[in-house]
Amino acid sequence: MADKSLDRVGAAVSDTRYDHKWGFTDTCFVVNPDRSVTVTGGRYALSGTEMPGFIPFVEEMLDVRLDLDDVKRECEDKPAPEPVVNQAFCRALAQTFPASQYTSDRRQRLIHSHGQTTADEVYKVLYGRLERVADLVFYPESEEDAVKVVALAQAHDVCLVPYGGGTSVSCALKLPAGETRMIVAIDMRRLNRIEWIDKENFRAGVQAGITGKQLEAALEKEGFTAGHEPDSLELSTLGGWIATNASGMKKNRYGNIEDIVENVTMITPQGTVEQLVSMPRLSMGMRPQHLLFGSEGNLGLITRAVIKIYRLPEVKKYGSLVFPNFKAGVDCLYELTRAGVLPASIRLLDNVQFRFGSALKPRPTTMEALVAQLQKFFLLRVKGFDPHEISAATIVMEGTAAEVAYQEKQVYRIAQKYGGIAGGAGNGRRGYMLTYAIAYIRDFLADYHVLGETYETTVPWSKVLDVCNAIAQKVDEQHRAYNLPGRPYISPRITQVYHTGVCIYFTHGFCAKGVEQPEEVFSAIERSLRQSILDAGGSISHHHGVGKLRRDFMPQTLSPAAIQMIKELKQSADPQNVFGIGNNVFAKK
Amino acid sequence: MADKSLDRVGAAVSDTRYDHKWGFTDTCFVVNPDRSVTVTGGRYALSGTEMPGFIPFVEEMLDVRLDLDDVKRECEDKPAPEPVVNQAFCRALAQTFPASQYTSDRRQRLIHSHGQTTADEVYKVLYGRLERVADLVFYPESEEDAVKVVALAQAHDVCLVPYGGGTSVSCALKLPAGETRMIVAIDMRRLNRIEWIDKENFRAGVQAGITGKQLEAALEKEGFTAGHEPDSLELSTLGGWIATNASGMKKNRYGNIEDIVENVTMITPQGTVEQLVSMPRLSMGMRPQHLLFGSEGNLGLITRAVIKIYRLPEVKKYGSLVFPNFKAGVDCLYELTRAGVLPASIRLLDNVQFRFGSALKPRPTTMEALVAQLQKFFLLRVKGFDPHEISAATIVMEGTAAEVAYQEKQVYRIAQKYGGIAGGAGNGRRGYMLTYAIAYIRDFLADYHVLGETYETTVPWSKVLDVCNAIAQKVDEQHRAYNLPGRPYISPRITQVYHTGVCIYFTHGFCAKGVEQPEEVFSAIERSLRQSILDAGGSISHHHGVGKLRRDFMPQTLSPAAIQMIKELKQSADPQNVFGIGNNVFAKK
Repeated sequence: MADKSLDRVGAAVSDTRYDHKWGFTDTCFVVNPDRSVTVTGGRYALSGTEMPGFIPFVEEMLDVRLDLDDVKRECEDKPAPEPVVNQAFCRALAQTFPASQYTSDRRQRLIHSHGQTTADEVYKVLYGRLERVADLVFYPESEEDAVKVVALAQAHDVCLVPYGGGTSVSCALKLPAGETRMIVAIDMRRLNRIEWIDKENFRAGVQAGITGKQLEAALEKEGFTAGHEPDSLELSTLGGWIATNASGMKKNRYGNIEDIVENVTMITPQGTVEQLVSMPRLSMGMRPQHLLFGSEGNLGLITRAVIKIYRLPEVKKYGSLVFPNFKAGVDCLYELTRAGVLPASIRLLDNVQFRFGSALKPRPTTMEALVAQLQKFFLLRVKGFDPHEISAATIVMEGTAAEVAYQEKQVYRIAQKYGGIAGGAGNGRRGYMLTYAIAYIRDFLADYHVLGETYETTVPWSKVLDVCNAIAQKVDEQHRAYNLPGRPYISPRITQVYHTGVCIYFTHGFCAKGVEQPEEVFSAIERSLRQSILDAGGSISHHHGVGKLRRDFMPQTLSPAAIQMIKELKQSADPQNVFGIGNNVFAKK
Repeated sequence: MADKSLDRVGAAVSDTRYDHKWGFTDTCFVVNPDRSVTVTGGRYALSGTEMPGFIPFVEEMLDVRLDLDDVKRECEDKPAPEPVVNQAFCRALAQTFPASQYTSDRRQRLIHSHGQTTADEVYKVLYGRLERVADLVFYPESEEDAVKVVALAQAHDVCLVPYGGGTSVSCALKLPAGETRMIVAIDMRRLNRIEWIDKENFRAGVQAGITGKQLEAALEKEGFTAGHEPDSLELSTLGGWIATNASGMKKNRYGNIEDIVENVTMITPQGTVEQLVSMPRLSMGMRPQHLLFGSEGNLGLITRAVIKIYRLPEVKKYGSLVFPNFKAGVDCLYELTRAGVLPASIRLLDNVQFRFGSALKPRPTTMEALVAQLQKFFLLRVKGFDPHEISAATIVMEGTAAEVAYQEKQVYRIAQKYGGIAGGAGNGRRGYMLTYAIAYIRDFLADYHVLGETYETTVPWSKVLDVCNAIAQKVDEQHRAYNLPGRPYISPRITQVYHTGVCIYFTHGFCAKGVEQPEEVFSAIERSLRQSILDAGGSISHHHGVGKLRRDFMPQTLSPAAIQMIKELKQSADPQNVFGIGNNVFAKK
């Protein structure tokens, strides 16, 4: 894992994942008898911390009282239809591969039949039923295996679904209900080796089933990093990043996935698509490889990639800034972008997320309480900040000592112009340490009938506040329209900045207690929010992709001829629709 | 023009271009009776300079004596076959457009039938004949015009060839000899307006026929720049940059064309391919737009693009470095890349190009001579540099005052580690000022039977010296094999650096006096050099593209399935092959 601060030294870490929920089984949020909350295990910095403010914060935000005795339990015996079995394919598979490379185990079939979209996927598998479940799971152990299984599927009219970390939140892994062929989920995670590291040219050939955690651990041993840190880093895979067109929090330094990857190998039914020699920037005509980014499982199996790697930074330094309000923070980011002094990562939290951070704090010790009081005094009295307007930015700087020193000086100098004051390295560090742990909160709160999801979008600078306001308004309106309990939680943060705009990442949630088919209500609200985002000037997605969840918005995104071009491309690469997952423009109603 | 230092203040500048040679008619290199050389006109900083060292340098390098009385003159009355006329198309065209929008004028037809590839195109049009000449030239004045002409061509089975600045050096504008349909060159340069500037989000909507010079002049008036500076800036167009996948010298700060362009509009026979809303980074599935980069005229007409723009930099500062040898310079660039302190542009010249710079110097005044002597003393005596090994880098830094100051300090600090010493801002500035003027030298020397061309390639860092050595050896071997006069001129410079490698830009030339069909010999040598580049670890092209010149190397570049994917894509976007220019994988023998 890139950020070792997240691992407690000496803690036993076993990477067993939940079948359907997010993350590893050693970690979950639990409520103590005094209504404080603790994170189990020793995996994260937050693990073991007793948080008295958590439940009160949730209750205040949602304007509901959580009944901690009323726990919504997942189905113990999850329904799965009998598998569709293509006998000829199964015979051929058995003749070609050892039994250790495939399974029709019901549990594995269920695991491989969904991603992590809250309402449409996780809610359904936990509390209801999936419409379609994979009929078999296959584990390629080499590129040749991938080629062979694609050929078998083509020969026997079987549908293949590439499966990486299973962390999609766009219903990209949701299986098409109408698929009558046998569906085989291709779990790529046995292809998890770094094949070579070219230290002189700073690149590595890596199998695409490697998870971010494995990749960074292996590179770190050699003194390198790829620098790609999506929030799903621990679970998601290189191939998944390419297929989703992923973004990492440190993209200012290392780039997004399309900047990091120099070459991709994809096995399609028509053959292997790749560049024969990996190269820095080229002008070689149209590059089919560029289409593999965002291919979302529609075209083939991504088996390998050549990625850029970097020496571990000489210096890594955290920082934070506190602004009088969100707008001041946005204005500061805007100028930092102009001034060319963007830290590896800088994330701007709105007031709600800023306060959420406090809700995750442990019971203060006397000294901590003192410091906190002092800080509070400084912020609220001396600077005259309004606690209900304060916004904060967390910062990671990486590079040579000179680079980081220069960046730090410039960032704080510019921040001052917008009323920003340094909030300390500790708060910055803390913000990043929370990243992986807070992903477990969704499933924790679901136990208490609270549904939550995140939405992200790209927005030109001039529309940032418009989009935030439009969403705040829409979410309230929808909440009332559906007559939902309490009030909605909605909070934006800016996670990425670009020359012409930013990525806004919204967290949305509400208490669904007593609501009938809450997952349907949630999905309907989500769709209306996406339309509001588009109407206000935002995009279909910054890094989660389209999948099935956002298919309806493609006609607002691409011209008809462009969509047609994608369809014809698919037709040529995969005329039989072996890769029939049906995402993006291939998604059916 | 981005770099105003290139324009003499007060000089009358009329942008009339040569019909077939490079550049503007007010500028050419002429020999004076004393064998010194002068650049005519007042366009460039070099204009008017009397250069006594130029001819001696060329003679020394080529090991020949130039007979300045033996001038090879271009054909006065250039042959052009009778045009193929598709009567139905011509009638429809005449009914749809005013006569001012098309011409069958022989001169215009010839002008629009080639690019600037030395041997295969310019040599042939000047001294021989073009195999195929456009039958008509059409000038769209709006996007609707473009849509209409594409529809007419499709309806009447006419071949369309997009034409931008005509500066291709990959035979991408060479018309297919076997094309029996009427060929209409579509000159895009009347579509040269900036449609809008979004100052808040730093982007502009620009018609694709705008030249770099027009673009930068218009942006500069508003206080902005696009920062894209290919050596062809004065002549080449935005649409051409996209179609070629161009690179600019300041890409470290502004990116290459694929980084600069946020959205592209292309008119294909199947409709308009574009993203409906221009956006910063997105994850929206496969993006057909990514394929338009490097489309090389094969798919449609690029009519518009949304590009990123930047405020004119607060500070622009030149610099230069002198290294004991080329390898030391390469090593320094390597470390600068690691240290994250790359100036907007840094170019490394080998010893030959370093000396070439001196050959372009004017007759020294006393003071200049004194300074030059001092410098020489310092370089050769104090530092012990060998004048036949010295290598130099020219630098442009742009940004805020703080940014430039930081960069400058770091660059010189790191350069010291490699024996690099500051060569002064004047030499750096001079290096960049020469960029546009030296492009005229090819045509000047052609008059005296010297053929010259440039080749560029992408190379991983570890192969830089291998590729340079392989080319030096191969060019000598070929020179001898063809029994050519004197010796070849071959000189590399590094024009772009990347995390994993660089772009090497070779200049090659030889005296072809007395050689039969020298253009064929040149082409044959060029092909063998490209194979040597590939064998030694270089790529098919960094920024010139493939066109027809490098078609044979595509099977060494892309996998068969990837090539097939491109072919099917073309088939779907343009089933009738309206855009029949036949470049890249569509090139015929």
